[in-house]
Amino acid sequence: MDITSHTHHISQQYNIELEAIRTHLSEMGGMAQRQVNDAIQALIDADIERAEQVVRADIGVNNMEVTIDEECVRILARRQPAASDLRLVIAVTKAITDLERIGDEASKIARQAIAMHKDGLAPRGYIEVRHIGGHVSRMLQDALDSFARLDLDMALTVVQTDRVVDMEYSTAMRELVTFMIEDPRSITRVLNIMWSLRALERIGDHARNLAQYVIYLVNGEDVRHANLEAIEENVHPRDE
Amino acid sequence: MDITSHTHHISQQYNIELEAIRTHLSEMGGMAQRQVNDAIQALIDADIERAEQVVRADIGVNNMEVTIDEECVRILARRQPAASDLRLVIAVTKAITDLERIGDEASKIARQAIAMHKDGLAPRGYIEVRHIGGHVSRMLQDALDSFARLDLDMALTVVQTDRVVDMEYSTAMRELVTFMIEDPRSITRVLNIMWSLRALERIGDHARNLAQYVIYLVNGEDVRHANLEAIEENVHPRDE
Repeated sequence: MDITSHTHHISQQYNIELEAIRTHLSEMGGMAQRQVNDAIQALIDADIERAEQVVRADIGVNNMEVTIDEECVRILARRQPAASDLRLVIAVTKAITDLERIGDEASKIARQAIAMHKDGLAPRGYIEVRHIGGHVSRMLQDALDSFARLDLDMALTVVQTDRVVDMEYSTAMRELVTFMIEDPRSITRVLNIMWSLRALERIGDHARNLAQYVIYLVNGEDVRHANLEAIEENVHPRDE
Repeated sequence: MDITSHTHHISQQYNIELEAIRTHLSEMGGMAQRQVNDAIQALIDADIERAEQVVRADIGVNNMEVTIDEECVRILARRQPAASDLRLVIAVTKAITDLERIGDEASKIARQAIAMHKDGLAPRGYIEVRHIGGHVSRMLQDALDSFARLDLDMALTVVQTDRVVDMEYSTAMRELVTFMIEDPRSITRVLNIMWSLRALERIGDHARNLAQYVIYLVNGEDVRHANLEAIEENVHPRDE
């Protein structure tokens, strides 16, 4: 099944348009990923300049969403895509919504970094931010790569990692609550870390969504609300 | 511009399909709204049975998303809609994503209600939940009505109310932090309320998104990242 290549249309222009939305999605993904990495680093280093830069740059991600969305609508209106082309356009329309929200969550983390400049550093939680942030950043990278290469195994890895992130997030949150109870003077500052972890966990959810669109794109099956086992079965059907 | 009526196609079947996605969107919206209202009530009344019902019923909202999405893809593939029909299909595809997330947020509130059954009632924050919850529930109602009637003024009201909700949310959160610092024994229980308020604020954002799709649907303009003033100008252009 040659679905990685969309260069099979008689109209050269149509090919160019389909390639363009793939390329722009990759670019938007790269932007969103840089925002996430910069926001995490700004939080860990208490780097207010970098945090403010992340907040300012969010508009770039938003603009990309509108541009790519318009490109998709134009293709739907003029080219009336069918089969895998239609799935590509639909998957891209959905993916950009997730990337835009990832940008929003990165901004939220950056805003917490700015708040911590005011409230003072948190006495706890940086290891968790670094650790969960590392997971989530890699998930996003893998989700984008799996989209570019239509790599189902890589997409599956992202879905699997999201479960790990959710567990680590819950553990970290419980520990931070315990810490706040023991040291109430730290409440405001630990809350900044908790909101940031929450944003990271949401970014993980969005990366999982991206990976699930890849499965939809390749297999034509909507696995958004399937559990992990069903998704594994979809990607690697067991022999009867 | 008669865009409220999509009964202008030669193919009777096509008309039926377009009407169906509108109807199903309304139904899904009604489900999501009931979930939100039930979750708020479960939290306020510490009604664990109702909360568990909300968590269980989330799958119904999810299933609706998949079904409507499939209907939209089928229309795109077979009918190759143009102009306002295409905008309708696109707006519905986007709207169901927001409704699905609204269902998720309602579940999160219900889970907090369940946690409070275990942790004990919070000493503060119920007035805020009721107040902000009332706003958000009405926003969702208005967003759905504005979609059904293509009522731009109602859509604009939703966007305006979202700004009020965001402000009230910030105020409530600051007060709850202050309260936690004064009474550290309440931290866990007040956090349950804070997470619930956060979920309500997110539901407000999604209702605003729904309203913005109505503006897109009627005016053909993507106002998702426009500020309130620009949206007001879009809906009510000033005379030169």
